[in-house]
Amino acid sequence: MKKKVFVYLVGCLLAISSTAQNKIVVFQSDFGLKDGAVSAMKGVAIGVSNELKLFDLTHEIPAYNTWEAAYRLEQTISYWPEGTVFVSVVDPGVGTARKSVVLKTKTGQFIVTPDNGTLTLVAASQGIAEMREIDEAVNRRKGSEKSYTFHGRDVYAFTAARLAAGAISFEQVGKLLPAEVVNIPFQEAKLEGKKIRGTIAILDIQYGNVWTNISSELFKSLGLKPGDKMHVRMYHQQKKIYESDMPFAETFGSVPKGKPLAYLNSLLQVSFALNQASFSAVHHVYSGNDWWVEIEKR
Amino acid sequence: MKKKVFVYLVGCLLAISSTAQNKIVVFQSDFGLKDGAVSAMKGVAIGVSNELKLFDLTHEIPAYNTWEAAYRLEQTISYWPEGTVFVSVVDPGVGTARKSVVLKTKTGQFIVTPDNGTLTLVAASQGIAEMREIDEAVNRRKGSEKSYTFHGRDVYAFTAARLAAGAISFEQVGKLLPAEVVNIPFQEAKLEGKKIRGTIAILDIQYGNVWTNISSELFKSLGLKPGDKMHVRMYHQQKKIYESDMPFAETFGSVPKGKPLAYLNSLLQVSFALNQASFSAVHHVYSGNDWWVEIEKR
Amino acid sequence: MKKKVFVYLVGCLLAISSTAQNKIVVFQSDFGLKDGAVSAMKGVAIGVSNELKLFDLTHEIPAYNTWEAAYRLEQTISYWPEGTVFVSVVDPGVGTARKSVVLKTKTGQFIVTPDNGTLTLVAASQGIAEMREIDEAVNRRKGSEKSYTFHGRDVYAFTAARLAAGAISFEQVGKLLPAEVVNIPFQEAKLEGKKIRGTIAILDIQYGNVWTNISSELFKSLGLKPGDKMHVRMYHQQKKIYESDMPFAETFGSVPKGKPLAYLNSLLQVSFALNQASFSAVHHVYSGNDWWVEIEKR
Repeated sequence: MKKKVFVYLVGCLLAISSTAQNKIVVFQSDFGLKDGAVSAMKGVAIGVSNELKLFDLTHEIPAYNTWEAAYRLEQTISYWPEGTVFVSVVDPGVGTARKSVVLKTKTGQFIVTPDNGTLTLVAASQGIAEMREIDEAVNRRKGSEKSYTFHGRDVYAFTAARLAAGAISFEQVGKLLPAEVVNIPFQEAKLEGKKIRGTIAILDIQYGNVWTNISSELFKSLGLKPGDKMHVRMYHQQKKIYESDMPFAETFGSVPKGKPLAYLNSLLQVSFALNQASFSAVHHVYSGNDWWVEIEKR
Repeated sequence: MKKKVFVYLVGCLLAISSTAQNKIVVFQSDFGLKDGAVSAMKGVAIGVSNELKLFDLTHEIPAYNTWEAAYRLEQTISYWPEGTVFVSVVDPGVGTARKSVVLKTKTGQFIVTPDNGTLTLVAASQGIAEMREIDEAVNRRKGSEKSYTFHGRDVYAFTAARLAAGAISFEQVGKLLPAEVVNIPFQEAKLEGKKIRGTIAILDIQYGNVWTNISSELFKSLGLKPGDKMHVRMYHQQKKIYESDMPFAETFGSVPKGKPLAYLNSLLQVSFALNQASFSAVHHVYSGNDWWVEIEKR
Repeated sequence: MKKKVFVYLVGCLLAISSTAQNKIVVFQSDFGLKDGAVSAMKGVAIGVSNELKLFDLTHEIPAYNTWEAAYRLEQTISYWPEGTVFVSVVDPGVGTARKSVVLKTKTGQFIVTPDNGTLTLVAASQGIAEMREIDEAVNRRKGSEKSYTFHGRDVYAFTAARLAAGAISFEQVGKLLPAEVVNIPFQEAKLEGKKIRGTIAILDIQYGNVWTNISSELFKSLGLKPGDKMHVRMYHQQKKIYESDMPFAETFGSVPKGKPLAYLNSLLQVSFALNQASFSAVHHVYSGNDWWVEIEKR
């Protein structure tokens, strides 16, 4: 009798752990909001279960920019509850051999995406609990086999919805893959001698400011106080695009109009700006995994 | 006794059939997302019943463009579950004699809209089960009679919400209309001798590609293989805007940079592009019901 | 016994009144939809309670424009049900001494916002039932104390979600403040002698039309009939930007192309336009609390 109760309890726990999804699906894509693509994905998802709660990360990822897809996921994932299922459809390789996968993070969230670099940053920060390849023989919207497949709608949204709703377990997504993702190469932020190198991860579009992946903690190792001069070089691949001295500043107004400064942005990462002008537009500096920066004390 | 049970069962069945709506409302408009108009519509809807699930198709339909409203509805409607209620507010004739209607499709969905051409494509593809005129004497937000009416909010969103929530049956929308909609005239895709004619239905805005309503099935009748030359004429109303030879191609890269090609887009419809340039911008070709194309084998 | 029942009933009523929130949260900001900021706020909110229903007012408020934040709230608040919780994050003074507050309107809605002028119009139209300062010692996302705070996410979205979900009562937001808000000064619409003065409250962006806060009721006091001439002066602060005669018209087509007219917009407020051109672009007239207009009969 006791044994039965024990088995029952274990069963319950397993049931709970295998349905830890929370009915929340968060969508990201490069589709924009002007046509019907996002709406079609949500229609498919809510058709799986009308108990799902559907949200958006953004649909304004620049076309085919898997780096920005990776960045936006990383920027937001930890603010969503455990068990949330993300769908990211930025898929320049649609129709090629890239794998369609679901990553379960060590923090208990799921990301449904082509494995094309989109998982680069999240896999590193959240950890890979397990990764599975979507078995499209079973995890595909009925009727969509016959003709052209819009993967975002027919496979990714559909699989994410079924996983979030508990219609399939994570195991039923498909076969287990090695715990590694396709990584976009980029310059990790690190100290080398007296220089720090890092990636120009993203632009603060509205103002043209330039944001790196160099944290304030790492930056401290240069020993700069507000007002101190630093020397900055920015590169695109192997080509130097910008080089200049500038102060580390706490306010934009501490340099003359149009002059450069370094500062810590709202994520406490090293960033660059011109006072009342666009650093990006003036100096033709953009962002992505192949844009990097080198800074040192002057 | 048996009779009572029978009556009861019939009552249940009627109740079920008259509440086949699924509490989902999908909004489309030309309002954009910069002001409060969409939000006001959703506030009115959720005020009817907070069990409703509200979604967007798009709010970026170009102002007053009923053709694009018709196209986006047609593009997405079949991905939403049976019983979904759509609201489309693209209404150049607000204040004129156009009727406010609810169309029930043969596939069991509802569209609340001015009958101004918005239903052209959906009525043809999904079929008209019934069409009813909204009786504004009863189906109007309380208090909105006294002053100016924002129909999208006070009549369409309100009626859609009440229908979706089951607060009114479809019959209570208003009187039955003949099963016909106001149609926007356009060139249906068809073979005439050795030519196919069709409409330039929409632009793939992001790239300036030109999409037609000519399906791959119909296109096959020209017997073209990838690499074969075809002759293409594009017209706006009666005026020829573009005429040229170009290959039918499987990849953009199969023609030199800036050169034209025909291809099958993601909906498997005949489309036109320039390799690495905007066909629309370069050749001043746009889309809509009065833009059409004529293609033949060279 | 009867007393106990009475006490119990009173308790129930109090419980009801203190949880009059309806689980609806409506978000407004100047963040745009291109990055992850809005998504992070929603993730935090749904993490408080997955029974919440999250909506958007707009996220396209021009950066730091508290006047437009005030205007959009005022334009939409009355269409949402009683008990709705609004979050508005347009916060040029983040990091300064501006208070973080929750306003309960006399109409039973809640607005969570920095008290920086955002409440100007809503406080006047809906009335102030009570205003409380957010006690950030308790009403702040766990873990966010340690580092930089994104107030919109860590305090405002979090507090709004807890209030909407009934996890805290309105009293638990924090200490009661005097029933007054920080007001943005603007020209209230009023008759002075034979002139009406008012604010150029907002542009109808898509067309460049100029909308004032002068109601049709007030406008009637000038005794103008359609076709009558009026004299219009527009000012930015103390500087006159525009002065001309124009007719009061019912249709744009009643003046020649490019000529000005005054009309009543969809909110029944006095507005100005050029027939088939942008009044704002041609005459460099914009909107906001420091743009005002003076009109009189000619």
